[in-house]
Amino acid sequence: MDAAAFKARLAETAAAVERILDDLLSSEARPGEIARPRGLIHAMRYATLGGGKRLRPVLAVETARALGRFDRGPLRAGAAIECVHAYSLIHDDLPAMDDDDLRRGRPTTHKAFDEATAILAGDALQTLAFEILADPDTDASAKTRAELCLRLARAAGLAGMVGGQMLDVEAETTPALLSLKEISELQAMKTGALLAFSVDAGALLAGSDAQASAALATYGSAVGRAFQIADDLLDAEGDTATLGKRAGKDAARHKATLVAALGLDGARRELARLVEEAKAAVEASGAGKSGGMLSAIAEFVASRKS
Amino acid sequence: MDAAAFKARLAETAAAVERILDDLLSSEARPGEIARPRGLIHAMRYATLGGGKRLRPVLAVETARALGRFDRGPLRAGAAIECVHAYSLIHDDLPAMDDDDLRRGRPTTHKAFDEATAILAGDALQTLAFEILADPDTDASAKTRAELCLRLARAAGLAGMVGGQMLDVEAETTPALLSLKEISELQAMKTGALLAFSVDAGALLAGSDAQASAALATYGSAVGRAFQIADDLLDAEGDTATLGKRAGKDAARHKATLVAALGLDGARRELARLVEEAKAAVEASGAGKSGGMLSAIAEFVASRKS
Repeated sequence: MDAAAFKARLAETAAAVERILDDLLSSEARPGEIARPRGLIHAMRYATLGGGKRLRPVLAVETARALGRFDRGPLRAGAAIECVHAYSLIHDDLPAMDDDDLRRGRPTTHKAFDEATAILAGDALQTLAFEILADPDTDASAKTRAELCLRLARAAGLAGMVGGQMLDVEAETTPALLSLKEISELQAMKTGALLAFSVDAGALLAGSDAQASAALATYGSAVGRAFQIADDLLDAEGDTATLGKRAGKDAARHKATLVAALGLDGARRELARLVEEAKAAVEASGAGKSGGMLSAIAEFVASRKS
Repeated sequence: MDAAAFKARLAETAAAVERILDDLLSSEARPGEIARPRGLIHAMRYATLGGGKRLRPVLAVETARALGRFDRGPLRAGAAIECVHAYSLIHDDLPAMDDDDLRRGRPTTHKAFDEATAILAGDALQTLAFEILADPDTDASAKTRAELCLRLARAAGLAGMVGGQMLDVEAETTPALLSLKEISELQAMKTGALLAFSVDAGALLAGSDAQASAALATYGSAVGRAFQIADDLLDAEGDTATLGKRAGKDAARHKATLVAALGLDGARRELARLVEEAKAAVEASGAGKSGGMLSAIAEFVASRKS
């Protein structure tokens, strides 16, 4: 797949997810709803709309497509995952957490609104994610919908994303450096679990068989780890203007990263190895030619500049 | 039902819910989990265990029982609802929100731990609620599990509990007093939606027919409104030691309450009317004698002293 076609397809999926989020976050109350408070909707829209790579939705949608499902269901699941991702960013940026003023080149949600609104917007975005997944519009099968909710909860909760953030907060206030194993576990929870769920959700929605599911789980895990190393490398090497968020903050906080543990060269080698692992898993999934987009995503994740 | 039997049954259900929460919030990682961060689990346990009336779980469990379902499913659903309730209290108490130091006679979660831990514990409790509802242990029917997730999300999200909290925060910073209609809508969202969902979840889990569902929806709504008026009356008339949280804070903040809008006597009359409405709805549900506990709960909600 050539670079222009790849970029166009990424942009097309991102735009489709954006349209779904825009519709879900309408300021008009739906039938049965009492009201949608304007301030809350504004903050939720601010935090979710207006771009971003939409990597997680893209993973869900392209996994489903590789296995033959092309309708709106995976796009809706992708929108749900994006809600969870956006909520985690809002809360992570709060003064009591990472205390960041800048995100994607714009003021963070609590800076653009206020802290109370940011906390509530994050809370409501998490709820919305489950509302989307549990809605028959996402999949006609109740079994699939319940399974999506269960797996998202496991990926996002105390032993997943939130737990990883807790370990990260603790690591910053602990003088001892984490071991390589501890860093890997922290990152597998904090960012890996939701990325892996994105692939998993796509496979589930496409009704993948056991062999494809196992191979795609390997793919999702490798892409998740590659994403985190690439992120750490960007923080270590990038600049604030390109990133749209503060660069160098990991080092400034003695933050536990694989770059700190492996060194720049070691991290780059590990990144290249993970891309190969991801591509081999796509082969093993039996997706055949339709897996080309998944392989291209693995390369994209490793080589991104922002 | 005499008062002693009623109290014993409340206590028994509360204890059963406590045991489920205690088990779900074990510090041991489950199969497939990487880790359960200790600090996070401690805060989640602090905020959910150790008592409380467990009114919402009791509503779910007793509604299911009134319709003939007595197994563990409604208790698990009750535990899920309690997780949502506890998460909302943690976040509402934060310095950026109501800034409360005391809850149920103990330091609030951000005081007992710290703000970052409190934010994350609230986040993970919300996630856990959906994990419980989506789990086959709660109900064998995937359709019921997906429907529980969908309805909880609607009750707890931007047009429900979180939206109501947003309206409440906005009302405190707006000089204009809310109208009676606006206060009612705010409270229907902030506290009514989750109380009504509790009844709804019990009915759904018991496979209630359309007539019973409609009557029980009326019951849930009346109990929710009665609860809020009783709460406002307690705040206006109670003292901090009895309540275990700061009393008189609504008036101190010119907070929009029905007591402010209706006066003490008007509020007490409305409370009595709602209890009758709730009891009539139990009659109409066809639960017969098994509905006695639901009627007793309506009276209890209106007459509680803390």
